Amino acid sequence: MMTDIFATRVNPDRPSALSGLFINDTDPSAVSFAAGSPNESLFPVAAMKRAFSDAIDDKGPHLFQYQSVAGNDSLRAKLAARIGKWGNVHTTAANILLTVGGQQAIDLVAKAVLNPGDDIVVETPAYVGALAAFDIYEPNYHAVGLEPDGLDLNALEDTLKRHPGIKLLYTVPDFHNPTGITMSVTKREALVNLANKYDFIIIEDSPYRDLDYVASPLPAIKSFDTQGRVVFISSMSKILMPELRTGWLVADGELFDAIFKMRQAADLEACGVIHAAIDAYMTHNDLDAHVTVLKDHYKRQCAAMITGLEDYFPDEVTFTRPTGGFFDWVTLPEGIDAGKLLLSDIQPHAHINYVPATNFYPYRDVHNGMRLCFSGLTPAVIDDGMHRLGDAVKSALHDVEALK
Amino acid sequence: MMTDIFATRVNPDRPSALSGLFINDTDPSAVSFAAGSPNESLFPVAAMKRAFSDAIDDKGPHLFQYQSVAGNDSLRAKLAARIGKWGNVHTTAANILLTVGGQQAIDLVAKAVLNPGDDIVVETPAYVGALAAFDIYEPNYHAVGLEPDGLDLNALEDTLKRHPGIKLLYTVPDFHNPTGITMSVTKREALVNLANKYDFIIIEDSPYRDLDYVASPLPAIKSFDTQGRVVFISSMSKILMPELRTGWLVADGELFDAIFKMRQAADLEACGVIHAAIDAYMTHNDLDAHVTVLKDHYKRQCAAMITGLEDYFPDEVTFTRPTGGFFDWVTLPEGIDAGKLLLSDIQPHAHINYVPATNFYPYRDVHNGMRLCFSGLTPAVIDDGMHRLGDAVKSALHDVEALK
Repeated sequence: MMTDIFATRVNPDRPSALSGLFINDTDPSAVSFAAGSPNESLFPVAAMKRAFSDAIDDKGPHLFQYQSVAGNDSLRAKLAARIGKWGNVHTTAANILLTVGGQQAIDLVAKAVLNPGDDIVVETPAYVGALAAFDIYEPNYHAVGLEPDGLDLNALEDTLKRHPGIKLLYTVPDFHNPTGITMSVTKREALVNLANKYDFIIIEDSPYRDLDYVASPLPAIKSFDTQGRVVFISSMSKILMPELRTGWLVADGELFDAIFKMRQAADLEACGVIHAAIDAYMTHNDLDAHVTVLKDHYKRQCAAMITGLEDYFPDEVTFTRPTGGFFDWVTLPEGIDAGKLLLSDIQPHAHINYVPATNFYPYRDVHNGMRLCFSGLTPAVIDDGMHRLGDAVKSALHDVEALK
Repeated sequence: MMTDIFATRVNPDRPSALSGLFINDTDPSAVSFAAGSPNESLFPVAAMKRAFSDAIDDKGPHLFQYQSVAGNDSLRAKLAARIGKWGNVHTTAANILLTVGGQQAIDLVAKAVLNPGDDIVVETPAYVGALAAFDIYEPNYHAVGLEPDGLDLNALEDTLKRHPGIKLLYTVPDFHNPTGITMSVTKREALVNLANKYDFIIIEDSPYRDLDYVASPLPAIKSFDTQGRVVFISSMSKILMPELRTGWLVADGELFDAIFKMRQAADLEACGVIHAAIDAYMTHNDLDAHVTVLKDHYKRQCAAMITGLEDYFPDEVTFTRPTGGFFDWVTLPEGIDAGKLLLSDIQPHAHINYVPATNFYPYRDVHNGMRLCFSGLTPAVIDDGMHRLGDAVKSALHDVEALK
């Protein structure tokens, strides 16, 4: 009855890319590779409790008063130093905006750049939360695929030539969600050159960059930016704890100003109490040492998943071999719909859950893939779950063959 | 150089209604009636510190994991009970969404409803933060004035007849920001009838409703809503502490669903750690008793301001007589620009600050008013400041007369 009164961006016929991702399976044997949540057994709860207490003692009532749109100065300075050290991005607190998770950062850049119908490029498969954010601004999507060393730049340049109005490109260059792929340094520099040549903005969304299990993080795409075209986004969600709801972005010049204006109008400011607690945590604890502990655990979980893929999955299936982050991407033979298979077979019988490919494509037109997340599970549970999933996939492929 | 790449909503030629509000006057005698911040000396810091500690002890690591888009269930149930008791709105946690301050709630409703060029009504003068939020969605504003008992409903109905496409009306019915005016119960019910008749949505923004210095809060506009047309918004900012960044809204049916979808895409969820701390605070403390303490202080500050207006201001000036909230509105004779007067004379010489009328009008076309906020100052400072401001206004009016 009231639908006529809504803005077109509500688009009730198109469900959010974020809806329906997770099935609640109460079976005691259920194993979920779906949720991309960090492992809460690794959360530094006692240290963070102390950090809240320290921040309140240190600042007193003023901590709870309105503060600033950009967020806590001291924390922003620490983050600037961190991305200088680990990403070769040399910036200052003045170019950093603290956001409500990385999600708000994506939303704000989209809001500052996109008119309805504007052309944007997303790598595919693409992070579902980014698609959900972009959808609201009603863009015209162009999908560019991934190669083992990241975005297919030849396909990208073809797309840019055919659509000279493209304004924005979204990429997760480090341990990509959902594939685990990392973009090479050569491609990072080349991508910035393309942005300069074809006049577009790059969102570099990098929440997993610290979680590298074999080497050190690579220079950020932003480190090659000479024209203020790259917005670097990261977050405390994966390296500290997600419900602190603290993401951050680095941007320059008038692009920073436009994002700032969108932010002020959207919610005035994020939570300075949380910022002060994170700042106190980083003052009194060694965040890098904590990240080392995380990496030690996640590395073994990642290895267990790859071993499972090697040992239990049929030859017709291909998969990525990530060296960091939370995710593996499995590609099934063409014609297999991983979403239908999940609902008809794998979840009800094997009690395994994953996120099917469909959710990761802006036009929901690719179905033969699955995102598997290892972050929340022990190596033993991963092994058991992968065994059951591999058997279920084999059986499904066998049925398909039998039907031919 | 890059301005061409921005969305039209960035509109760099139109500064945010929230920018340039506050002058930093370091003179030791400076008195600011500008900032609408609550009095931080009244913040329950020790109780809130304990609440954070309790929430962390109670929930452990899971408190810091991703939680839910709508926010903490227990806190939402408490807020539902509270608005039932104090506003006669009978709802449940399922219809409440926790937001990042009341600002995000305004933004989300605007986002769910407004296409560029859509017609909306704002009461004038209007809250600057709401104008900043609406501006981003590029509406066509219609201004309707206030009477001593709230929105001028005759003028509103004339406007609705002339512009049948009006989709949204924004009002602060309780101790209105910036005038302190409260809408009568009769008008609340009549406004809902107009919304039903002319098919529009009402944003009822009520952050000050608990701070009534002479009586109990009135039934909310939402209490008369039979068609799910009213979104009630409130916040913990004024009755607890603003930097908790916790607002909330009550909405129904498909309007709730549309707002929820906008929220999920914007930032996934607000901070559950904060929600759990507020919930623990409300479990272990009597929020109503705290509000009684606030009212006892603010009532005396409000009285000091009204006495100052009576004693020190010239007869050509009129002013409101609020019985709650934080603000008085002063109307200067036509032709006096309170903004110019502030910059040329009152701030540099009297070291008094206020927010001039211009900021509170969507087309920035009314200049002869000022918002005075008493919430952050003691009665003695208010008396001194009002004396100096009254003298400065008298002198300015005298100069204008002399120039005639």
